[in-house]
Amino acid sequence: MAIFTQLEEFGHEEVLFCQNKDVGLRAIIAIHDTTLGPALGGTRMWPYETEEEALADALRLSRAMTYKAAAAGLNMGGGKAVIIGDPKKDKSEALFRAFGRFIESLKGRFITGEDVGVDVNDVEYMYMETRYVCGLSPAHGGGGDPAPVTALGVVQGMKACVQEQFNATSLEGFTVAVQGLGSVGSHLVELLVNERAQVIGTDIDEEKVRRVVDRFGIRTVPPDEIYRVDADIFAPCALGAVINDETIPQFKFKIIAGSANNQLAEDRHGEELHRRGILYAPDYVINAGGLINIYVELEGYDRERALRMTRSIYYNLRKVFEIARQENIPTAQAADKLVEQRIAMVRKLKDMYTGQGVHRMRWETR
Amino acid sequence: MAIFTQLEEFGHEEVLFCQNKDVGLRAIIAIHDTTLGPALGGTRMWPYETEEEALADALRLSRAMTYKAAAAGLNMGGGKAVIIGDPKKDKSEALFRAFGRFIESLKGRFITGEDVGVDVNDVEYMYMETRYVCGLSPAHGGGGDPAPVTALGVVQGMKACVQEQFNATSLEGFTVAVQGLGSVGSHLVELLVNERAQVIGTDIDEEKVRRVVDRFGIRTVPPDEIYRVDADIFAPCALGAVINDETIPQFKFKIIAGSANNQLAEDRHGEELHRRGILYAPDYVINAGGLINIYVELEGYDRERALRMTRSIYYNLRKVFEIARQENIPTAQAADKLVEQRIAMVRKLKDMYTGQGVHRMRWETR
Repeated sequence: MAIFTQLEEFGHEEVLFCQNKDVGLRAIIAIHDTTLGPALGGTRMWPYETEEEALADALRLSRAMTYKAAAAGLNMGGGKAVIIGDPKKDKSEALFRAFGRFIESLKGRFITGEDVGVDVNDVEYMYMETRYVCGLSPAHGGGGDPAPVTALGVVQGMKACVQEQFNATSLEGFTVAVQGLGSVGSHLVELLVNERAQVIGTDIDEEKVRRVVDRFGIRTVPPDEIYRVDADIFAPCALGAVINDETIPQFKFKIIAGSANNQLAEDRHGEELHRRGILYAPDYVINAGGLINIYVELEGYDRERALRMTRSIYYNLRKVFEIARQENIPTAQAADKLVEQRIAMVRKLKDMYTGQGVHRMRWETR
Repeated sequence: MAIFTQLEEFGHEEVLFCQNKDVGLRAIIAIHDTTLGPALGGTRMWPYETEEEALADALRLSRAMTYKAAAAGLNMGGGKAVIIGDPKKDKSEALFRAFGRFIESLKGRFITGEDVGVDVNDVEYMYMETRYVCGLSPAHGGGGDPAPVTALGVVQGMKACVQEQFNATSLEGFTVAVQGLGSVGSHLVELLVNERAQVIGTDIDEEKVRRVVDRFGIRTVPPDEIYRVDADIFAPCALGAVINDETIPQFKFKIIAGSANNQLAEDRHGEELHRRGILYAPDYVINAGGLINIYVELEGYDRERALRMTRSIYYNLRKVFEIARQENIPTAQAADKLVEQRIAMVRKLKDMYTGQGVHRMRWETR
């Protein structure tokens, strides 16, 4: 079993196994760290073969949420829920409502929303039982499509990159290779064109390629070729693990800055970029726009505020690059360091505060 | 791992793994069923060899709490917490306060108190972080010693037994064999003497025997002989599993009614008593006085109310005996049936209510 060993290794506070036999619900809620605030993270539904797999996913993804929220400067911790089941066969109103009651029972310590296998309709069922969900349809106070916000965050991050790497103050004249022309990628292309950058795009879906070319007249290449095009910046906006042993030797890029999750196949690939002098914008720092959008939704959605907060990704990356420069470490390590420092600082403050607070309470109420 | 399989088998709603590396806390909180109300159950500290053992204990004991609370007619569900550690070496204020914060985070869904390895001082540390603990010292609003209340409950249960078995309305003239002269046993002897019953006592601790003999002048026997004395009623108030293949053939008793937990070694021993026409007062029904005492503490302690509620154990057992008589089943089975009927009935009512309530809320707030 060794659950506690895993919790200690990952640094989790708690993990909850929820069951409702009547509706066939088996779910795991992992709360990684609530030092900065309530744990925020989506709910994933997946036909995991074993409980171990489901637990491993919940632990891994919830820790990533802690880092992402902390790096974005949000007062939020990290969590994640997984429902064991096949999204194509096992969904029902009863199941999501039962799950919603578990979320409600946590009284806001965990706030969730859509993720792989869980869509806005499922979240609406959860919302029947709990307020602690987000990513609702705009009609119900939700923030709507997060893609434009994520894309804006990537552009802000790119600006921090060109500042660091070329001492440049705008993206004008730089060439950007955008991998993936889906919702985030196509918004990114639009923003880059407005910034007067050159764009080279690619996507495995030819229909998406055609649509972007029709609108913005950018140059495109077949999917395999994107890694070796002559561009200053590579923006992975589709798959994970695209920075790996096969792709790195092809890179002529000086900067990697995109919205995809888990861009580095392994940690050592971040070290390799560092050795080659390629500036890497750590994925969870630069792609936080979507999360910021959700954070704003929790406070009552305001598009302007979401966009304003997303601009801070520029400053967050500047801090990461400063640590990396001063300590001569890869940027991915510097980002982790920034997060861990922030959490440790807040934990220290809270410990001091809580100690006093509790004592005061004890003496006053007796 | 198979945690969900176990949860389904036992019928649990959820199980929570809590960890705080800084203070060395590893705890499991099992919430079995909250249909009737918040889950109530003690916190045990024990040097479990494996996580599996700790989980098994938490699951087993929390389910037993559901049955006990439901049989006592309380609006409480069943839960239990276990802390993995050696009570002699691993205790600290920091550990119990960290655990208290987990209890607090459940916001009253689980209410806990002392159990094996956890004493009133440890509960006081937990209380620094959460109100959701009970069994505090009387100075802090606690109910104090539950033993006299438990003993009263056993006497009420015995009255239901003599009513059922002999159509008698008092214990006067009946002979009762009391096994264990500790806190509950000695209070029981006092109450039985007041009821003009004959008492035969035993204990492995000679000092305890001497003290009870000095005060009440009862007859005593060596520990081994208690199973074969000539008495109408056997009151096990010490060890569990004292109704087993070795002891049953020795019984001349017509009634078994005592405060010990888990009196039947196995379910089949309850069936054997049934075959032999020995009336068994199911342990968790007759020994609920201590739990009732804690329940009253949660509402603001009132000794009179605790004693009054404990008298209802008479009626609870009458209901159990009625089911057993009508269906010709062992009383232990009848008690489980009573509990399951009560929970199913309340669940049905709640489902109806919740369904409507949620719909109303949705339409009014949008």
